[in-house]
Amino acid sequence: MSSKRDTYRATSKHTAILNAATEVFLKSGYLGANMDDIAKSSGVSKQTVYAHFQSKKDLFVEVVGRITDDASSMVHDSAQASDRDDDIAEYLLSYAIRQLTVVLTPRIMQLRRLVIGEVGRFPELAKVLYERGPQRTMKALAGVFERFSKKGRLNVGNSIVAASAFNWLVMADPLNRAMLLGDNAIPDADELRRHAAEGVRIFLAAYGRS
Amino acid sequence: MSSKRDTYRATSKHTAILNAATEVFLKSGYLGANMDDIAKSSGVSKQTVYAHFQSKKDLFVEVVGRITDDASSMVHDSAQASDRDDDIAEYLLSYAIRQLTVVLTPRIMQLRRLVIGEVGRFPELAKVLYERGPQRTMKALAGVFERFSKKGRLNVGNSIVAASAFNWLVMADPLNRAMLLGDNAIPDADELRRHAAEGVRIFLAAYGRS
Repeated sequence: MSSKRDTYRATSKHTAILNAATEVFLKSGYLGANMDDIAKSSGVSKQTVYAHFQSKKDLFVEVVGRITDDASSMVHDSAQASDRDDDIAEYLLSYAIRQLTVVLTPRIMQLRRLVIGEVGRFPELAKVLYERGPQRTMKALAGVFERFSKKGRLNVGNSIVAASAFNWLVMADPLNRAMLLGDNAIPDADELRRHAAEGVRIFLAAYGRS
Repeated sequence: MSSKRDTYRATSKHTAILNAATEVFLKSGYLGANMDDIAKSSGVSKQTVYAHFQSKKDLFVEVVGRITDDASSMVHDSAQASDRDDDIAEYLLSYAIRQLTVVLTPRIMQLRRLVIGEVGRFPELAKVLYERGPQRTMKALAGVFERFSKKGRLNVGNSIVAASAFNWLVMADPLNRAMLLGDNAIPDADELRRHAAEGVRIFLAAYGRS
């Protein structure tokens, strides 16, 4: 009984530390963040923080991994639903709008800036973001495109190339703007929809079959 | 006479400081760089550095502006040459390869990472990079696309939208990889050529007219 309660306590502390660390890193950057602040705002001692995460670096990797996984899962789940879809243009449009909406948040933009700024110091961290973010999304999409191709609805040779083309037709312009121009450059819902629709049109002109 | 020589000396000092600052910033990042190191490696006194650039921040803006302008000019000049070109596919392919080759260097990748990492502290710096980099390139390309459209060789409604689509079809995938995975992820010449060719094919499927 008591071990169950201990597990619950440990899990809840773990989550509390991660949540606090996320806010501290996003606000102060990697170098500016310190373990005292993280301990303080998670309401645990610094020893407890170190009992859960060996170093500031380990904690940063966890924070980046968790936000990336959450975002990817939201995009990924929407990709999985596609099999049942028959109208490819409509499927791609709703996929694109979902991806844009999930990724283009001030929180994820700031995380991405932090990680890119630290590539020199922590190359493995950016790799975590790449593999669990865009790469995971593109692989899922490639699988969807292969199934559409088998049904004769798309004409996709290399499905990874096609998935990358679609991904970046949709994401690159608004992502690049937001990266460099800040959160005010994140387009509103109407703009995102128009942008997504043009991306779908271009993609289907090249890979469509109807 | 002596004033001419003074001007020459001042210009050459200015350039020496900028060159040294570029290396120091690329190596140590913005926070890590200090004016003493920059003075030392440009062979001038710290007072002289401050006589040319009021602050480390001003110097950083100059460094970023200069590298960005140089790269954009190289891409831009190749866009300008297009008017005489009749084979659009060939023109676009050589434009794309040139842009990929000019931009995807370890130096520009590192600069971009630095600038993105500093968006929170210096929003205006990233704006310099955006406006003098991708935006300038896309505007030049939009002009080219309008002329091609008038000749009936392309079917481009909004030329800025088309220029952005082409730009990111070409740049986004390798740029994003290099940003996150480091310089080893910069594709070799053959890969860049294949990637550029697929970008051109997709673009012309959507906007071409032949």
